[in-house]
Amino acid sequence: MSVNHASASWEGDLKSGSGQIKTDRGGIDTPFTFGIRFEDEQGIGPEDLVAAAISGCYSMALSNELDGRGTTANRVDTRASVTLGPDPAGGFHISTIDLVVRADVPGVDEDGFQSAAEATRTGCPIAKLYAGTTINLDAKLVG
Amino acid sequence: MSVNHASASWEGDLKSGSGQIKTDRGGIDTPFTFGIRFEDEQGIGPEDLVAAAISGCYSMALSNELDGRGTTANRVDTRASVTLGPDPAGGFHISTIDLVVRADVPGVDEDGFQSAAEATRTGCPIAKLYAGTTINLDAKLVG
Repeated sequence: MSVNHASASWEGDLKSGSGQIKTDRGGIDTPFTFGIRFEDEQGIGPEDLVAAAISGCYSMALSNELDGRGTTANRVDTRASVTLGPDPAGGFHISTIDLVVRADVPGVDEDGFQSAAEATRTGCPIAKLYAGTTINLDAKLVG
Repeated sequence: MSVNHASASWEGDLKSGSGQIKTDRGGIDTPFTFGIRFEDEQGIGPEDLVAAAISGCYSMALSNELDGRGTTANRVDTRASVTLGPDPAGGFHISTIDLVVRADVPGVDEDGFQSAAEATRTGCPIAKLYAGTTINLDAKLVG
């Protein structure tokens, strides 16, 4: 079991205020604003972190899944795109997460690879955390 | 609507391999390993990013919630602790997320503050994304 910590402040109202996000273990110590989150100003906000978390988890977990099936990957690359928009039920929500996966896996056949990729789409810890949201998968063998 | 992107690679097997996580907009470009994720080696992994995302979202959203109720906060601080452990259903999962919130909010009464804090616990976009996981809340007024 592991426990990881982060802290964030916010001062001021939504549109003119600002915040700071920090992870205890270092690596992230970044300001964020309404403009960064909703208007493409330079910087990272919560949805960038959501994308980073699932791309990392997915690549690691698919490698492990393939390894467990006897087909060890040379490399897995995952790109995650996280869409934030108005929630029909009110407020905002993350409506979809799109994963584009490219993997170099000697000796695997297409069916075996797709089966491992799909198992990881629903089974990796971050995918389980995001289970209420649509996660689309485009997985291809390369190399 | 906004779309945010991140990418991650993984090379090698679970325990001796390593990966790299990057956000398109900069801010994160960090290596990760099994030791970082599961064994407290220095660095950040997916669960640190999960903690960072909800701490940032929660502080921003509670400020907005309080502002909408006519009680503008001077400051909101949120600390998120994310627990990763074995999933009784198989593999690993994030079993709980604990939020500790301290807010300086002139003019709000305790009931009004707790009501806003609880609404944000279930209503902020990242809390909705994590809705399948237990999110505990300890919210107090300070200042």
